[in-house]
Amino acid sequence: MEAGAPPGRDGLGDLIGLEYLEMGPEEVRARLEVTDDVRQPVGLVHGGVFASMAESLCSAATWLNVKDDGMAAMGQSNSATFIRPITEGHVNATARPRHRGRTTWVWDVEITDDQERLCALVRMTVAVRPIRSD
Amino acid sequence: MEAGAPPGRDGLGDLIGLEYLEMGPEEVRARLEVTDDVRQPVGLVHGGVFASMAESLCSAATWLNVKDDGMAAMGQSNSATFIRPITEGHVNATARPRHRGRTTWVWDVEITDDQERLCALVRMTVAVRPIRSD
Amino acid sequence: MEAGAPPGRDGLGDLIGLEYLEMGPEEVRARLEVTDDVRQPVGLVHGGVFASMAESLCSAATWLNVKDDGMAAMGQSNSATFIRPITEGHVNATARPRHRGRTTWVWDVEITDDQERLCALVRMTVAVRPIRSD
Amino acid sequence: MEAGAPPGRDGLGDLIGLEYLEMGPEEVRARLEVTDDVRQPVGLVHGGVFASMAESLCSAATWLNVKDDGMAAMGQSNSATFIRPITEGHVNATARPRHRGRTTWVWDVEITDDQERLCALVRMTVAVRPIRSD
Repeated sequence: MEAGAPPGRDGLGDLIGLEYLEMGPEEVRARLEVTDDVRQPVGLVHGGVFASMAESLCSAATWLNVKDDGMAAMGQSNSATFIRPITEGHVNATARPRHRGRTTWVWDVEITDDQERLCALVRMTVAVRPIRSD
Repeated sequence: MEAGAPPGRDGLGDLIGLEYLEMGPEEVRARLEVTDDVRQPVGLVHGGVFASMAESLCSAATWLNVKDDGMAAMGQSNSATFIRPITEGHVNATARPRHRGRTTWVWDVEITDDQERLCALVRMTVAVRPIRSD
Repeated sequence: MEAGAPPGRDGLGDLIGLEYLEMGPEEVRARLEVTDDVRQPVGLVHGGVFASMAESLCSAATWLNVKDDGMAAMGQSNSATFIRPITEGHVNATARPRHRGRTTWVWDVEITDDQERLCALVRMTVAVRPIRSD
Repeated sequence: MEAGAPPGRDGLGDLIGLEYLEMGPEEVRARLEVTDDVRQPVGLVHGGVFASMAESLCSAATWLNVKDDGMAAMGQSNSATFIRPITEGHVNATARPRHRGRTTWVWDVEITDDQERLCALVRMTVAVRPIRSD
């Protein structure tokens, strides 16, 4: 993200090598390269990576859509279901909004490997709140 | 973890600075220091950090308990509910097993800040499977 | 369901008036009529109804697909996100399998009202186990 | 619940035979008797019953605590993890608040059988909103 990006940087996103590919209204896509930094001890991509990607994508995309109304976006729940391990190549994430509400946005995120096999599903609820309110 | 630790290293755990404090049968505790590496753009600890800590703790602790039976442990679901942001100090995680089954273990993880305020709850299901089976 | 239906009856499904419309390999659909029996105190359809419909559909459909292999199907997790209340007409549920694994099936269920507005999302994991094993 | 109970009746709660045992500030308890009405086809208590009990308890208890401020309470998410089947006796539910926020309450619900074995865990988020706002 360049123009319109959040004021600070996404520290964890940078740490895991998150690279945005598309930030559209109906679909947000990003990926990262599988290295030992994102693997857990037996060589699979760490489940927290899938959750972290979803959190970054959905929070950023919600924020981009509500910031001009003076609103902030903050993750409220992140629920990941792991289906198939990824061991190499890229972790690819596609997020689609399922609900754009006044106080919450709900997103579905699909995680796939480079063979386009479904590897995880993440459902995220992002709270939308006036800035300065807790 | 020293003796009995998984063969490889926890790449993501290392990346976010995860430090184990206790690996007991009824309670597993770990923490990490809040730096910009684990913050998202507006300065709060990234929600993926909470999910990642839970994933590391619960997978490792389950594995320690089943490995002598020739079993592997792999995250099956990770569901995080965010309650209060953390901006500085440490992120502290305590995991407790709620179910030790033949095919799944269920864990509850509490995330607190240095003032011991509850900041997130994570429920994890870890699948236990014979090694070599998919 | 007629031929191939589970041996017993779905007591809760009957109680809430669940009516199957389609039991296909890629899509399972059912609905129920909104009456006071499925409303909570302020007149909205009770959230437990959405979870119950998802549970019935996904368990039954998984079972139909694995029973000939001597396997049983049993709900392992049911995670519902409520988006828009339903107050009248029908509650319509469409379930689609996202993963057909050896030990688990994962389903996404969409709940809509009669105006086809999305009212809830339910993600279900159904465990598949050999009959007689616990 | 008598005094202070919601204006209408809990249709689904009545349908499944929900009986409140305690409505305290730190703990809400209820149970229901296992009959064929709450069983699924192979004789186990239907998973939707656990989710429905949690939904009733947490929504009612949150409402009792916020109604005097002109607020309404409405389920936002309901996430159930099934651990052990129940086939007879009672389904016993105990709900405890984990977070009492301005806009959401978070609850943990334990479901046990009559031998006090843990059979399911439900985490519920209840949205608290001004009455008349959507």
